[in-house]
Amino acid sequence: MADVSAGLLPVISVDRSATTPLHRQVYAGFRDAILRGDLAAGQQVPSSRALAAELAISRFPVLDAYSQLLAEGYFESRVGSGTFVSASLRGQSGQIRASVHAPVAPRHTSRRSRLFPPYEQNPWRHGWGSFGVHQPALDQFPFEVWSKLLARYSRIFRLHPADNIHPLGLGPFREAICSYLRTARAVRCDPSQIMVVSGSQQALDITTRVLLDSGDAAWIEEPCYPLVRSLVHGSGCRTIPVPVDEEGLNVAAGIQRCPAARVAFVTPSHHYALGYTMSAGRRFQLLEWARQSSAWIVEDDYDSEYRFESMPIPSLQGLDPSGSVIYIGTFSKVLRPSLRLGYMVIPPDLVDQFTAVRFTMDIFPPYLFQEVLTEFMHAGHFARHIRRMRALYKSRRTALVESLHAEFGDFFQIHGAEAGMHLTVTLPEGYSDVEIATRAAREKLWLWPLSGCYFGERPRHGFILGFANTREEDAPAAVRHLRQIIGI
Amino acid sequence: MADVSAGLLPVISVDRSATTPLHRQVYAGFRDAILRGDLAAGQQVPSSRALAAELAISRFPVLDAYSQLLAEGYFESRVGSGTFVSASLRGQSGQIRASVHAPVAPRHTSRRSRLFPPYEQNPWRHGWGSFGVHQPALDQFPFEVWSKLLARYSRIFRLHPADNIHPLGLGPFREAICSYLRTARAVRCDPSQIMVVSGSQQALDITTRVLLDSGDAAWIEEPCYPLVRSLVHGSGCRTIPVPVDEEGLNVAAGIQRCPAARVAFVTPSHHYALGYTMSAGRRFQLLEWARQSSAWIVEDDYDSEYRFESMPIPSLQGLDPSGSVIYIGTFSKVLRPSLRLGYMVIPPDLVDQFTAVRFTMDIFPPYLFQEVLTEFMHAGHFARHIRRMRALYKSRRTALVESLHAEFGDFFQIHGAEAGMHLTVTLPEGYSDVEIATRAAREKLWLWPLSGCYFGERPRHGFILGFANTREEDAPAAVRHLRQIIGI
Repeated sequence: MADVSAGLLPVISVDRSATTPLHRQVYAGFRDAILRGDLAAGQQVPSSRALAAELAISRFPVLDAYSQLLAEGYFESRVGSGTFVSASLRGQSGQIRASVHAPVAPRHTSRRSRLFPPYEQNPWRHGWGSFGVHQPALDQFPFEVWSKLLARYSRIFRLHPADNIHPLGLGPFREAICSYLRTARAVRCDPSQIMVVSGSQQALDITTRVLLDSGDAAWIEEPCYPLVRSLVHGSGCRTIPVPVDEEGLNVAAGIQRCPAARVAFVTPSHHYALGYTMSAGRRFQLLEWARQSSAWIVEDDYDSEYRFESMPIPSLQGLDPSGSVIYIGTFSKVLRPSLRLGYMVIPPDLVDQFTAVRFTMDIFPPYLFQEVLTEFMHAGHFARHIRRMRALYKSRRTALVESLHAEFGDFFQIHGAEAGMHLTVTLPEGYSDVEIATRAAREKLWLWPLSGCYFGERPRHGFILGFANTREEDAPAAVRHLRQIIGI
Repeated sequence: MADVSAGLLPVISVDRSATTPLHRQVYAGFRDAILRGDLAAGQQVPSSRALAAELAISRFPVLDAYSQLLAEGYFESRVGSGTFVSASLRGQSGQIRASVHAPVAPRHTSRRSRLFPPYEQNPWRHGWGSFGVHQPALDQFPFEVWSKLLARYSRIFRLHPADNIHPLGLGPFREAICSYLRTARAVRCDPSQIMVVSGSQQALDITTRVLLDSGDAAWIEEPCYPLVRSLVHGSGCRTIPVPVDEEGLNVAAGIQRCPAARVAFVTPSHHYALGYTMSAGRRFQLLEWARQSSAWIVEDDYDSEYRFESMPIPSLQGLDPSGSVIYIGTFSKVLRPSLRLGYMVIPPDLVDQFTAVRFTMDIFPPYLFQEVLTEFMHAGHFARHIRRMRALYKSRRTALVESLHAEFGDFFQIHGAEAGMHLTVTLPEGYSDVEIATRAAREKLWLWPLSGCYFGERPRHGFILGFANTREEDAPAAVRHLRQIIGI
């Protein structure tokens, strides 16, 4: 090993005119030589002084490079002997570099992750516009108030409570949600039962983890919100489709198909996708089944703020004396989906388990929107916005229904137009909603096919038509466009 | 059923001086009578005209109340016969109300959720201050710039792209992250591999779901970040503790204990909690084990931005030619934890599976912070802030180390002070870190005990001392306080 430094010259070539600093060049030169196997483990390297002289550069960049190579473990120094390529690299470096880059065969991943359906960017999910589902009237949102609050709260430098950890969310926000739910939704709750989540899907995910094991059975509405089914199926559970009629979930059919289901997932205020409201009779039947079989009910109350022909229907949770309902709500519909903000009301004896699971999933929800929304609610902006939107969406709903009647007559059957932000039309036999929606998407009309919400054998075809983001004056033209696309 | 209206009078009592509107009083009167069983299913109710006359009020509130009761399914109308309590309520109402409220015995929940350790609000997690772990110097954050950007982006009314769904996150943000990672962390990546997540814990959760089934084995560092262990254990997997020494994970020990582990969870840049950097030799051993056994490596690079004695150590991912590393990073340390913003770099052939799982978990990440941070990065604020904090944290680190030497001499062993935002001190035999931390918390000194990071039989005792949020001038007094509490 006498003439190592001479041997290094072809390896460590420095270029004084390059933009890369000299110390980086020296570092990279050694590192690459080791990785290629040109320098072997245990081999001595020249002293920094010798190398600097050899390369005719200052000693400082060499010292910088050596200290980096020592820090990363490529070099080791032995007291009194000098600097060496680390002995621990023996047999590693060249071998690593020689291996292939891209895998050829599919590699091992979990069985459970393969139960999740692939994410598909369907043609009808590309844009906002007429008939957009889950799309509030964003142009009506009080952006000025909102952005002022955001700026104010994001400028304040405060450590308490904004950066302590509360897996359930911020206290004042949970109090505001609790008070809203008691008044507006007849939910029986205390702030200690409220958990802030990043949208209702996360609430469903946490709930599924706490309540269901792989192999357990759960009732799913047929048709249903597809992501509920993906989640429960993806968790390795058996999904039992239970038919929905104009009174909501057919509880008797559920009991007949699977009396021992552990959980029923329902949307009683405004069924997704058919828009029906669960009748009082069915509500009591469902609660009674849950009580008798020690099952749980998950109530997804996703757009209950909007009801046009009567007052809002009180929640199922509020009718339940046995604490068997997990209640889920969201700000996606009233404010906007991209906030990713929702909440759940957990039965008191389950709060600790939900908290443990949530803490391990993502620790705690982001704070700024919670602080801003607390003030937004206290100052009355939230209630005012709901009232304004209720009136607006009612007019838009009416305009859409009238346009549908005018253009289509009896061609469509209209379902669930009394509430929420969408209604559903069903097609006569022989039409394929997916085929029509695919054609419509090419003309930038986004139609959500109903058949995608069915998992049983006989899906109905039709469209879920959002009206919240379709202006009254635009409804006739949009409906005419729809008719041209269908070709009748 | 001739004289129903007369029979109703004690039930439906209206109070004209009450603040509750008359229609709410009529509605509540009927609903409660039905729920109590005072009105039976199938029983006819008086016509709205007759009831209005009986109560001596206008007919409008009665009509409002009836339409609500019809909408909720408490009433049904039969054409030509009048209005009745719904027949479907038969046998339900009274029974429901009679049942108990609070459950007596623990109720059935999933076995898997009981694997998660309970969330404990430990005394030392209550506040910010000297030695706070994961606490950046928030008083140095450019709040004015940040809040201006937030206000600007939250005021803009735009539908594209802010409210379309991208389960991976916003495109421009992923490009900015990708470019940062390539330059600063030598990560090999393309924007299509980047997923935006709500902090590194969510990245770990998604990764665990995609890579591990119940019963699978995973290497966990001993000691380790406790939430990694909670997550993997909570997923029903076997956690194999693999010892960490000054060169990082002892790969040979891992191979000896469990060669067939499917995943290794590591923190190579700055081990949590001991602060060691994994040597090049160990890195190659680990990559070679993963390649040979078709295992995966999860690299949590949580505070790699800060390195004081050399340049940042390139990522393990960048050394890996086989695409076996899932790389995880976070903005919690550079910006602030309450943003809940992190990212991961997924091997190309796994992107679809990660996307499917994430979509079903919480659909997509919130947008505003992504938009703001994209501009914050492009405008150079991000790099500038890291540079400033690197210099600041280096001084703070040095001040803490000097104070520790001055007060404690050789009492403490100091580990991992070359990088990151914390160092770790270990106690001599016979001291209990939890006992000391509990006493310290009473005096508002928040100390994170090291022993809580061990899961094997022989935990070391000591403290993880954050220095990023401890000013130079405050370090001596804080260290003196620590000495008083220990009582030496």
